[in-house]
Formats: sequence, structure tokens, C-alpha cells
Amino acid sequence: MDANRLTVESAMRRALDLAARGPVHGPNPQVGCVLLAPSVREDDVRAVLAEGWHRGAGTAHAEVDALAQAAKRGVDVRGATAVVSLEPCNHVGRTGPCSVALVAASVVQVVYAVADPNPSAAGGAEHLRAHGVAVRGGLLADEGEELLRIWLTSARRGTPYVTLKTATSLDGCVAAADGSSRWITGSAAREHAHEVRAGIDAIAVGTGTLLADDPSLTARTPHGALAVHQPLRVVVGEREIPTGARIHGPGGEVVHVRSRDIHDVLAVLGARDVRHLLVEGGPALATAFLRAGAVDELHSYVAPMLVGSGRRAVTDLGGRSLDDALRFRTVHTRQLGDDVLVVSRAHPAGAVVDRAKES
Amino acid sequence: MDANRLTVESAMRRALDLAARGPVHGPNPQVGCVLLAPSVREDDVRAVLAEGWHRGAGTAHAEVDALAQAAKRGVDVRGATAVVSLEPCNHVGRTGPCSVALVAASVVQVVYAVADPNPSAAGGAEHLRAHGVAVRGGLLADEGEELLRIWLTSARRGTPYVTLKTATSLDGCVAAADGSSRWITGSAAREHAHEVRAGIDAIAVGTGTLLADDPSLTARTPHGALAVHQPLRVVVGEREIPTGARIHGPGGEVVHVRSRDIHDVLAVLGARDVRHLLVEGGPALATAFLRAGAVDELHSYVAPMLVGSGRRAVTDLGGRSLDDALRFRTVHTRQLGDDVLVVSRAHPAGAVVDRAKES
Ligand SMILES: NC(=O)c1ccc[n+]([C@@H]2O[C@H](COP(=O)([O-])OP(=O)(O)OC[C@H]3O[C@@H](n4cnc5c(N)ncnc54)[C@H](OP(=O)(O)O)[C@@H]3O)[C@@H](O)[C@H]2O)c1
Ligand SMILES: NC(=O)c1ccc[n+]([C@@H]2O[C@H](COP(=O)([O-])OP(=O)(O)OC[C@H]3O[C@@H](n4cnc5c(N)ncnc54)[C@H](OP(=O)(O)O)[C@@H]3O)[C@@H](O)[C@H]2O)c1
Repeated sequence: MDANRLTVESAMRRALDLAARGPVHGPNPQVGCVLLAPSVREDDVRAVLAEGWHRGAGTAHAEVDALAQAAKRGVDVRGATAVVSLEPCNHVGRTGPCSVALVAASVVQVVYAVADPNPSAAGGAEHLRAHGVAVRGGLLADEGEELLRIWLTSARRGTPYVTLKTATSLDGCVAAADGSSRWITGSAAREHAHEVRAGIDAIAVGTGTLLADDPSLTARTPHGALAVHQPLRVVVGEREIPTGARIHGPGGEVVHVRSRDIHDVLAVLGARDVRHLLVEGGPALATAFLRAGAVDELHSYVAPMLVGSGRRAVTDLGGRSLDDALRFRTVHTRQLGDDVLVVSRAHPAGAVVDRAKES
Repeated sequence: MDANRLTVESAMRRALDLAARGPVHGPNPQVGCVLLAPSVREDDVRAVLAEGWHRGAGTAHAEVDALAQAAKRGVDVRGATAVVSLEPCNHVGRTGPCSVALVAASVVQVVYAVADPNPSAAGGAEHLRAHGVAVRGGLLADEGEELLRIWLTSARRGTPYVTLKTATSLDGCVAAADGSSRWITGSAAREHAHEVRAGIDAIAVGTGTLLADDPSLTARTPHGALAVHQPLRVVVGEREIPTGARIHGPGGEVVHVRSRDIHDVLAVLGARDVRHLLVEGGPALATAFLRAGAVDELHSYVAPMLVGSGRRAVTDLGGRSLDDALRFRTVHTRQLGDDVLVVSRAHPAGAVVDRAKES
């Protein structure tokens, strides 16, 4: 048993920290749970009975994990309060509904940060209330939304959260006039990009980049070894993938979406439970995602270099005036060696107005 | 008298700090001086007798300022060591040579960081040695070079140190297709740019920007008032400046260089003792400076925005391949509101190879 004593609110901060230990990729959300000892007043400082978090698809949910920790130590959880970062599910999946487990364990109160938007999982709060459990949602909801941003966006929409990555010179070029593009950014930026790949579900490139660069689209460590998690490798466009292409080598599964319609790409990946898609270019595919209003986040690596008449990161977004430009809000910036990474998001996620008036 | 006791090296750090209090613009360098009490061993900790720094053209040089401070307080400086960030001048200017003043004051040793490259000022060390003063140069030379970078570069070359400023979208546009360019960056970045203007000697734009935007090219405070120091306003190009142009309003003197040759611009400004020139565009003038190999530093303000088919910050630099790109090294990056400022320098200053093969 944890020696800490916490209020409900500090238990929620702890639950969010526990949640963050879970895997950032995969179909399931990161969830943490803290079981607090019974109390008459909700704002009391109480003993922590057990903690748990979800370690990814096929493993126990956070609530079940915390209950199992308590059982293992012989801790009595009857009358306890479960503080969970996400509404307990009501979904008979591989692990059984958490709401049922909490009722069975005689937990009397559940406090959660964020409601579960998933139709197949929702209804947990209802089930709990129907069985006499006091339920309160929305505690530290903003922090919960921020942590689960990618999962929530994709669960609500049924399509992946899309991050567009670009590596450009200060004048916005991804390649020189002759097509040469190695390297624009330095090793620190490239290593960072591989870390990002190791934490997402899928990477997409257009057939143009596939044929020009023959990329392997794997997540690699700084030493060149394959990372443990390999994202799905997605190629978009009607042209065939050559049989000898590097993308057929070791790494994630390869999916070829033989279409130029971005909504087809999103539907195919949504159906495969892809939560987070990283679009790595080239310019034609990036522009198509932007024109479809399908970009939630930008990862813009910018190198201190001027190319002049090179190939641009995006081409025609359809606007003529500065009012038509796609504006993002900066979340953070970070210097990586000589380069700078600007992380910015559509505001609100997924709601970049499609000013491009698709023709 | 300063109560501090310092070694020669820590006195040099202090001299560099004092130097930095001086004005960043104007024809004269920032110089600081610390007078240390006599000592038998050079690495002793010694009493600080007096300090001084140069406050700009027409005022006392740092050494003379320190000697005056000592005299005012009746401090005996005979046998003292003068620790100065720049080699004492030998130049009979508005204030008389510092080397002569030091000899007259019976200072017995002079330690400086950086030699004076100015032909009219140099020879100070020689004069001192000829009069029996022990002279040692190069102490904390790197720190001295960094502090005096702009002044030293322009003094060595006889032409201004050139900073190119751009304000672009993430895809390298300075304006949309229809020419609209207000505003790409936010207020924090624009305020920062005005602070920079208030610290430089001259701003240049091409006639294209002058005619398109009718800028006033003044340094303003966040409240819109004119800053105390106003840079020279330089317009480059053969077309006339309209009589009603805002540039004729309150602000710095206006200089029209009726030429398209960047070397003409540099020569005109060098002859006017301009040490630091800020090139603010537009794309044609920026590209011309880059092709002439005349850019020492970039101030790249980048906004989280994608314009698509807009006007680019630079146009044709003459290269086809990535090997022809102009590479800079990042000095620092800074987030300003939603924007990021990347400050980068040619490596070494002024020596960007002109790969553009001017035609
Ligand atoms: N520096 C970097 O970060 C970076 C990253 C990636 C690429 N690059 C460079 O970018 C260049 C390749 O650029 P690219 O623009 O030709 O490649 P691309 O965007 O990877 O591929 C273009 C292809 O994507 C397919 N596509 C799918 N949906 C589309 C749509 N809605 N609109 C248009 N096309 C769509 C089309 O394939 P089909 O014709 O087969 O239907 C099209 O020909 C290479 O030089 C590469 O080195 C640089
Ligand atoms: N976002 C930003 O940071 C920013 C900053 C500045 C400007 N802008 C935008 O840039 C646009 C103006 O661009 P621009 O390129 O036309 O203007 P520009 O570079 O200001 O002016 C071009 C003119 O500069 C003169 N010039 C002098 N030396 C030259 C050389 N070696 N090569 C070529 N020209 C030389 C020529 O004038 P003559 O023909 O008279 O000889 C030429 O027509 C405007 O839309 C403005 O809003 C944006």
C-alpha cells in the first residue's frame, strides 16, 4: 500500500501521472486510477489504498489493475473512492467492464476527469449510478483532455488524429531544385523524429516520396536498430509500390491506400483503430491533407539554411490572401542542435476551417 | 572606490560587463576598463581603484573615464594595471589617445582582450611599450570578440555587419499571392523587431517594399512612440521615393542608394561609419544581399501559419542542389508569443561562400 495520503484532487493528479506511464500508441487510452480510503467528507486527506494504470490492449484496465493490487495486498477496498482519469468503461471487451468490477468490489464513489466518448465503452457512469455508486465527472477535465487529446479526438471523430511533419529550410523548402533533400535537418532533429515515430500508430507518405526516396519508414534508435514499436507503414496514391522497395523490409505492416481521396485514407485507418497518424510528406500529400482540413498538429523542423528556388513543403492551399492562410497555435518550440522544432495545433483540434475551397 | 578585490582575469570579466553598458549602435565600440592596484604577482587579488566605460561617440573612452573616476576620488593610480576589453587607442580623435593618457597617469601595465583592427586607432600597444608599459593582449579574447563581434567585423572589413530580417510563415512566405502581408507574425515578434531597430545604425529596404508597403522604418516603443535612437533609413533601387512617402516623416535620416549593386550600398554605408545594417527586405533585396555573400546574421521570425502559394522570403539563390544552399549556424532560438525567432550566423562572420555564381 502506498504510504501517501491524498485529497481527491491530488489523487486525480496522481491518476493522470499514472496514466502517462501507459503506452502512447495503440487503440486504447492511457488511464490511471487511485483507490482512496472511505471518508465522510470528500475534501479530506485520505490514505491511498492502491494504484493502477493501463499498460495497453490486452492488459487490465486501470481500475481493474488497482483492484488487483489491493487484493494482492489484502487491502479492504469496500467503501473506497475510485479516482480515475477516464470514465470507467461499460464495455465487455477482453477484460470485462470496469464499472461491473467496481460495483462488485463495493467501491461507493467514482470520480473521473473525462467522459468516455466511445459508444461501445460509454455508459459506465450510468451503470455505476444504477448500482448506488456516487459518480462525479469533470475533475481536472482540462488536464485529462490534454493528456488524452489524441485518443479523444480520434475516438470522437472515428478517424485518426493527424500530425503533419515537415523538415524545411528557413525559406520553406523540403528539397533543392534537383530534388536533393539529404540532409536539411541535423542529427538531433532526425533522432527526435524517430522518437516520435516510435510513439505513433501509423506513418503515411505519398507514392511520390516512396518512389523518389525509397524510405524504409521504420522507427530506429540513434544506433540504427529497430525500435520495439513499429508503426503501420501507409503509402497513399494509385501507383504501385515496387516489389524491391525498402518499405517491404523489417518494420511495421505495409498498407497501400490506392486512392487520392484523403477521406478514404482516414476511413481505412479509422477502421483499423489507428489513433495517431504521422504524415511525413511529400508536398503533394501534405497539401492534400491540409486542403481536406485533416491536419490536427504540425511538427515543423526548421533548419538554419536558405535554399532559394527549391521544392516547397506545401504547394497551393487554394487561397490568394493572407486571410486564407491556415493558422495554428504554437504549443511549444524546442531547439534541436542547429534546428528548431515548432509544435503547433489547429484550434480547436481537427477544426481547421477548410478555406481551401477544394476544387 | 569599488570595494571589490579582483584578479586580472576577473577584472577583465568586469571590464566586459562594463563595456556592455555602452550603446550598441553608433560608430564606436563598447569598451570597459578596470584599474587594479599595483602588485608584484600578476595573479594576485588586488583592489579595484576605478572603473570606466565608453558611453558613445563624443564622450570619454573607457580608460579616460576610469582615470577620471580615480582622479575625482583622489585615488593614486601610479603603478596600476589597466584591464581593458579593447586595445587602448592611439588615435587623436575628439578625446585624445588613451595610450597617451595611460602613460601620463603612470600606469605600468595594460592587459586587453581584443586588438583594435582600426588602422587609425591601432598602435596603442606599441606606444605603451615604447614608454615602458608592460602590455599583454588576448585575455578572454573569445568573450571580447563575441561582445564586439559587430564592431570588429565592420572595422576589419570597412563595411557594415549585415543582419537580414525575415518574417515568414512556416512554409517560407513573406506575403500571400495577392501581396497581403499584414500580419504574418504576432505582436510579441513585432515588438522584438522594433527593439532590434532601436539598437542598430541603419535599416534598408528595396524600392519594391517602399512602394508596396509605404513603411515609416522607425524604431517604435510598444505604445507607438518613437524610440530615442532612430536608425538611418536606407532605400535601395533606381526608382524614386515618392515625395509623400511615410519614410519622409519623423525618424532617422533618409539615404537613397540609387543602385542595384550591393557593394555600392555597403560602400556608401561604410563611408558613413554604419557598423550594423538591418536588411528588412523585400525578397529581391534580401536575395541580392545573399547572392553577394553579404549577410552575416539572420533574424528569422517564423509564424505557425501555412500560406501555400505565397511570395517567398528569398527567390533564386542560384543553386540547384542542396549542397548549394546557404547554411548558417544557430546562435539561439526564442519563442515570441506564437512565433519563433531563429538567430543564426554565417560561419565565420561574413564568410558565407558565394555559391550563387552571380550572373
Ligand atoms: N524534407 C522532407 O521532410 C521531405 C519529406 C517527404 C518528401 N520529401 C521530398 O518530396 C519529394 C516528393 O514529393 P511529391 O509531392 O511528389 O510526393 P508525395 O506527396 O509523397 O507523393 C505524391 C503522390 O501522392 C499521391 N497522392 C495521394 N493523394 C493525393 C492527393 N490528394 N493529391 C495529390 N497526390 C496525391 C499521388 O500518387 P499517384 O500519382 O500514385 O496517385 C501523387 O503523385 C521528394 O523529392 C522527397 O525527397 C521531403
Ligand atoms: N514579411 C516580411 O518580412 C516582408 C518584408 C519586406 C517586404 N515584404 C513584402 O515584399 C514585397 C516586395 O518585394 P520586392 O522583392 O518587390 O521588394 P524589394 O526587395 O523591397 O525591392 C525590389 C527592388 O529593389 C531594388 N534592388 C536593389 N538592388 C537590387 C538587386 N541587386 N536585385 C534586384 N533588385 C534590387 C530594385 O529596385 P529598382 O527597380 O527601383 O532599381 C528592385 O525592384 C511586398 O509585398 C512586401 O509586403 C515582406
